[in-house]
Amino acid sequence: MNDLTQTPEMLIAQMGARARRAAALLAPAGDAQKTDALRRAAQALRDQAPAILAANARDMDNGIDNGLSAALLDRLRLDADRIAAMADGVDQVALLENPLGSVIDSSVRPNGLELSRVRVPLGVIGIIYESRPNVTADAAALCLRAGNAVILRGGSEAKESNRAIHTAMAEGIAAAGLPADAVQLVPTTDRAVVGALLRASDFVDLIVPRGGKSLVARVQEEARVPVLAHLDGINHSYVDGVADSAMAESLVLNAKLRRTGVCGSTETVLIDRAYGHAPALVKALLDAKCEVRGDDAVQAMDDRVIAAADEDWDTEYLDAIVSIRLVDGVEEAIAHIAAHASHHTDAIITEDAVVAERFLNAVDSAIVMWNASTQFADGGEFGLGAEIGISTGRLHARGPVALEGLTTYKWIVRGRGQARP
Amino acid sequence: MNDLTQTPEMLIAQMGARARRAAALLAPAGDAQKTDALRRAAQALRDQAPAILAANARDMDNGIDNGLSAALLDRLRLDADRIAAMADGVDQVALLENPLGSVIDSSVRPNGLELSRVRVPLGVIGIIYESRPNVTADAAALCLRAGNAVILRGGSEAKESNRAIHTAMAEGIAAAGLPADAVQLVPTTDRAVVGALLRASDFVDLIVPRGGKSLVARVQEEARVPVLAHLDGINHSYVDGVADSAMAESLVLNAKLRRTGVCGSTETVLIDRAYGHAPALVKALLDAKCEVRGDDAVQAMDDRVIAAADEDWDTEYLDAIVSIRLVDGVEEAIAHIAAHASHHTDAIITEDAVVAERFLNAVDSAIVMWNASTQFADGGEFGLGAEIGISTGRLHARGPVALEGLTTYKWIVRGRGQARP
Repeated sequence: MNDLTQTPEMLIAQMGARARRAAALLAPAGDAQKTDALRRAAQALRDQAPAILAANARDMDNGIDNGLSAALLDRLRLDADRIAAMADGVDQVALLENPLGSVIDSSVRPNGLELSRVRVPLGVIGIIYESRPNVTADAAALCLRAGNAVILRGGSEAKESNRAIHTAMAEGIAAAGLPADAVQLVPTTDRAVVGALLRASDFVDLIVPRGGKSLVARVQEEARVPVLAHLDGINHSYVDGVADSAMAESLVLNAKLRRTGVCGSTETVLIDRAYGHAPALVKALLDAKCEVRGDDAVQAMDDRVIAAADEDWDTEYLDAIVSIRLVDGVEEAIAHIAAHASHHTDAIITEDAVVAERFLNAVDSAIVMWNASTQFADGGEFGLGAEIGISTGRLHARGPVALEGLTTYKWIVRGRGQARP
Repeated sequence: MNDLTQTPEMLIAQMGARARRAAALLAPAGDAQKTDALRRAAQALRDQAPAILAANARDMDNGIDNGLSAALLDRLRLDADRIAAMADGVDQVALLENPLGSVIDSSVRPNGLELSRVRVPLGVIGIIYESRPNVTADAAALCLRAGNAVILRGGSEAKESNRAIHTAMAEGIAAAGLPADAVQLVPTTDRAVVGALLRASDFVDLIVPRGGKSLVARVQEEARVPVLAHLDGINHSYVDGVADSAMAESLVLNAKLRRTGVCGSTETVLIDRAYGHAPALVKALLDAKCEVRGDDAVQAMDDRVIAAADEDWDTEYLDAIVSIRLVDGVEEAIAHIAAHASHHTDAIITEDAVVAERFLNAVDSAIVMWNASTQFADGGEFGLGAEIGISTGRLHARGPVALEGLTTYKWIVRGRGQARP
């Protein structure tokens, strides 16, 4: 499969041409055939668990030899439960509502032309990801269900696992009579191939990077193909003067500490000077082993508070660290968020509906919340089923992106011989 | 306004920062204030017609001195009627339905969280255009109505006209209490500024090029900001075996010849071998002074037919020239279109509904038509009001793009204190 004299551009052009042909065959296939393919792929993952585990063991051995961190090794590691969960995830994508063929809107023009906008597949999607091998199955399932062909480029540390998972997925798809090329895995870990994929605008309609900040930054910098991604989740929870104190404490602790490594976690807490329970809130965070970096007023509340530096207001900690500032009401909170947020998810906690609506309208982020934890920023929690990612871009899809974000539409015009005057 | 020591990047960064501030003020402004601004701008265009005509006369003089073609001079030229039409166009944008604030969909999650997706402005839009000065008013009006700030970069040949039109628009907007910086005109015709605008992803959310193929190609090549555009309109009309011959002749002549310079015109006609009236159709085109370039079978129908070369099937003539090929039924027509179309607008003419549906489903173009002229590919004809352009891209907006395509959405989540388990 991998010819050593081949340039990265040649490899991607070949894979891209195969993906285009596969996409053309997928588009007219019925939804039943696609869900059948997913169920067969899920079963193939279960049937081939021993081979997948053996491949994963080779990756783990290499990872240990190469000195991967414990965190990376944990992301890389598969076991029987994780394979079962991966297969169940593929089955669940088969249970989602069919995103294709639905009529977005329709109209009849005065001249009798009947217009409708109908959802169709996006085309060919490139997924670039790092150490988690489950992305090979998750992303392939979502792309396929939306009628797209996908080119997967996983991390070198997971190459054996990815190959084994891809084999199972492709077998399931072929067994349902769909083209196995609908899901292709880049057969080399040569980094130059990523560059070729990012520039392949003739063959790829959308790139989705799944991984850490350095990967996403590289993709956004180099890509000539449209990218759907978020770089940062610098999210805010604003505690208004008339917030309920028990709710504020519960939500802020959940938003910051439930899981600190997820993109929906709160990184900065803004507290209205009029809020009467700020010291108790700061103490609760500190007592929960969260490092607090505060402005002067917050430092005065507890000896354990560290002075926040300017860069703290622009930092995504992804750790048990929070920056806290007092503000003069909702307008100063909105201004702080406008200056520092990454436009991912920002929340207000208040009992005042008017203040809440002002915040929800004025904060220009993909997700804005009232009296809820920012950790709910997730396609599954939003009822979308699995998500391909969360977008902080403004075009095409914003916030959690699932099947609908992997589609586009066409205009269908039905006439009875109308010529244009 | 124009400091000669300033680099293009500095200029665009300053204009971009002003645009971001203006967009932040526009977003919360009510729709009534925006429509008021448009009406005042339309009136300012009428009131300042003498100044606009004087500016245009200077552009025309320069154009003649610089040897512009008659076609370019016609595009550049304004008169009282054209200014009145421009002002009326701005008024009409004020009559369109407000695209902002509408709820796209909503749901209540099992945990009681209330979710909705609400339309909001896209942000800052850059428009790069050539000789037609009316774009200064049209594009500004559409962007403003959708709550966006706009940076306009018109062609050097129209710089005096654009400046005068921009002055009127900005005065109308300021008179309504909205920031005049919502509509900015790049104050220099230095081509390097276009490059800076195309790379200004911190300040600009979308670029729309309005002009010829070389402009669009340059924009698509250089832009780091998302681009909404179409490069080609290589459109097909396929005459099926069971087409009504009178309808086929009427539609093909209209699709090709109504206006040959528009992007929705048909460039290639595919005729089913089973269609009994092909020679009459070819003769009608020739008699209407259309040059016909045909395959062997079409050449045999009439001495006036020229042999089509390979590149004819990939050529957008934008002229009274058509390429014609015989095909074996709808499947060969679909295959030809897949290989040669620019995915803009393609039509089938047939009395067979099953064949028509097959074509409408299988042809992967922004617009697919049954028994209608491809010349209907137009936002106004689709009932969208004015259009900012037609997109052959697959993301965000496809086909005619009007107000909705200049918006995005945000997710609003309303809770009652829910923390994520």
